[in-house]
Amino acid sequence: MTFESRWVQAPAHVAEAEPGLPEGFRAAGVACGLKPSGGLDLGLLVSDAPDTTSAARFTRSGVLAAPVLLTQERCRLDAIRVVVANAGNANAATGRRGIEDAARMQGGASMAAGIREDQVAVASTGVIGVPLDVDKIIKGILAARGELAPYGDDTFGEAIRTTDKFAKSASLDVALPSGTVRLTAQAKGAGMISPAFATMLCFVQTDAALAPETADLLLGVCVKRSFDRISVDGQLSTNDTAILMASGASGVRVAPESEDEVRFGEALDYLLRRLAMLIVRDGEGSKRVGRVVVHGGHEPHVTAASRAVADSPLVKAALHGGDPNWGRIAQAVGQAVHSAPLPVDIWIEDTQVCAAGAVRPYDERALAEAVAGEEVEYTVGLPGEGAEAEVFFSDLSHEYVTINAEYTT
Amino acid sequence: MTFESRWVQAPAHVAEAEPGLPEGFRAAGVACGLKPSGGLDLGLLVSDAPDTTSAARFTRSGVLAAPVLLTQERCRLDAIRVVVANAGNANAATGRRGIEDAARMQGGASMAAGIREDQVAVASTGVIGVPLDVDKIIKGILAARGELAPYGDDTFGEAIRTTDKFAKSASLDVALPSGTVRLTAQAKGAGMISPAFATMLCFVQTDAALAPETADLLLGVCVKRSFDRISVDGQLSTNDTAILMASGASGVRVAPESEDEVRFGEALDYLLRRLAMLIVRDGEGSKRVGRVVVHGGHEPHVTAASRAVADSPLVKAALHGGDPNWGRIAQAVGQAVHSAPLPVDIWIEDTQVCAAGAVRPYDERALAEAVAGEEVEYTVGLPGEGAEAEVFFSDLSHEYVTINAEYTT
Repeated sequence: MTFESRWVQAPAHVAEAEPGLPEGFRAAGVACGLKPSGGLDLGLLVSDAPDTTSAARFTRSGVLAAPVLLTQERCRLDAIRVVVANAGNANAATGRRGIEDAARMQGGASMAAGIREDQVAVASTGVIGVPLDVDKIIKGILAARGELAPYGDDTFGEAIRTTDKFAKSASLDVALPSGTVRLTAQAKGAGMISPAFATMLCFVQTDAALAPETADLLLGVCVKRSFDRISVDGQLSTNDTAILMASGASGVRVAPESEDEVRFGEALDYLLRRLAMLIVRDGEGSKRVGRVVVHGGHEPHVTAASRAVADSPLVKAALHGGDPNWGRIAQAVGQAVHSAPLPVDIWIEDTQVCAAGAVRPYDERALAEAVAGEEVEYTVGLPGEGAEAEVFFSDLSHEYVTINAEYTT
Repeated sequence: MTFESRWVQAPAHVAEAEPGLPEGFRAAGVACGLKPSGGLDLGLLVSDAPDTTSAARFTRSGVLAAPVLLTQERCRLDAIRVVVANAGNANAATGRRGIEDAARMQGGASMAAGIREDQVAVASTGVIGVPLDVDKIIKGILAARGELAPYGDDTFGEAIRTTDKFAKSASLDVALPSGTVRLTAQAKGAGMISPAFATMLCFVQTDAALAPETADLLLGVCVKRSFDRISVDGQLSTNDTAILMASGASGVRVAPESEDEVRFGEALDYLLRRLAMLIVRDGEGSKRVGRVVVHGGHEPHVTAASRAVADSPLVKAALHGGDPNWGRIAQAVGQAVHSAPLPVDIWIEDTQVCAAGAVRPYDERALAEAVAGEEVEYTVGLPGEGAEAEVFFSDLSHEYVTINAEYTT
């Protein structure tokens, strides 16, 4: 699939690659019977390189799913060599039994791959509050072991998706000063999102050699600029997980504070922002994508205001209807920033509609045309300078209501 | 209209009264041409008692509408004798001109009623970011002056409504130890809400005699327990205004710390909670009303968790669909309270579905029946004791999307 967005452009040293994992990785996805549809629902990803390094980030929810708790507590997050992931059941709000089930998944994948348990990460996505049928998963792991392949990223990616309407994966060649490396990723999510049916997972692989500290630094920065900056419905999941694994099999080492690190970071940044954008585009029922950029002098204010605009059902409904209803932008900003009266500036695309808190004359027909496209940009100016925050968000549609009101657990 | 809700019961000393304002008040509503429909859109309310006391509360938005700014800055909030209010235009995000227009409304109403400008409160509701046609309003004020009547609360109430599907007013007789007083109110709002088309206004009148401090204390406490505890879409308005006026014309004095004060407070509490409930029931597109009660040991946690549940589009969509999807309750609580892992308890109606963070076996059919009614109650237990918070909320429907996506300013 060709990816295009004016907001997310590939750096010059990054090129689309043929499908297939970076050297050192194998993967597979199989159907183990968790999805009622009979679709692929169990994924296994293995790095054959003993010195693989890794980094991970997880949801900040207070209600953590069992696989997140287990992976955080019983896994060496800097040396993950195996990921076992299932769709169809989030294994969340499942108590002690949930932890035991996640541990059985970890143990099963460890035996199948012949790799220590504390190097196996576990991830789940699907309905909350239903005990996991772990026997099916163990059988699935054994089946997946027999199908592990360098080109298994496609079935692995399919096995972790739920309500997603399209695949969210990428395979890139990254030209570093020290050599070219491969960077691939598989993500799922139709938002941040519908916790009963879909959460955000992302697995990233590279054959570059990264110190664990470098992997952690780069993943942390790039997650903050991508998955942390999107909203389908403003709902934080119980299961969100992002894992970067580096096999080192290319022989190209990305040293700290080197030009290689800068270039690799740019490529990872592009990759994660691209996948984040795909998640927003595939937001449940979504037709249009909005981007709000808030600038001003106070970091907490620009962050809160950008979130308030992106999460507002009124702004989302107006985006859906192609309505340049900027009063709702002003309202959402006022809800987030209480220091009244607030001299707020608002632009929709290139048209300023509000200056220092007051309406500004504009061409209504031109503005209506500007919000009729697939991507709409809103800019908000608060007093002061130096701080800026952006959020990408999907619209609010009838289909979102249908998906979330008519689906019954 | 008969009002019934298991959550809002009239105290024994409060009885439904005949329509009509308390002694000392006159009101009227007229059509001045702001609503495209030609409906009533300008309301005037006057107290003829020179010693009228009052209290007021306003939105906490940072983007304050001109009438809110003007009333806060140029009105004696403890001695309001006149309210002039319009629907069809919020006079918000209108800058200096908006303030001048609000001042002309205040001046016009002052002249019409023969009462000092600083005793005139101004309120507006409707679309944001459109300059007000204040000439129409001045003509409307003159027309309303000729129609002021003790029974004008019905047209006044109609003139402040916008997308509201039904009237939100009440007329009560309150038996106090020192005598019986009348308590009436007119509210509008199809939520907290759609800022481009509807905001929350509430005007309360009584012929009891209250010191300004008593009026302020009672209004403050009762607003916190009513309008502060509802959510249609979690969107704070730019124009919310609540004003209590006491003419004293009944001769019954409500003294501080007296039994009269306790009883009057109970009646006011009932009145505002009843109107708040009507606003939630009339929430845009709403079919069902939910109540979430969160208890635990930490005040900020129970407050944040109750808001998170009530504002969640996933919980609202499940409420709409009659889906007992308690995983979404757990998810919303986890989003608000980050101290993981959280041993959360969840009940839907009388059925406990989650204990200490883990699913509990329950009768699925009985639960499905329990969430099929017009009112659904969710209870959440967090660790500890002593703190509790409740929020009433409407559901999320296709009609909400239609109203907010297809309406164009």
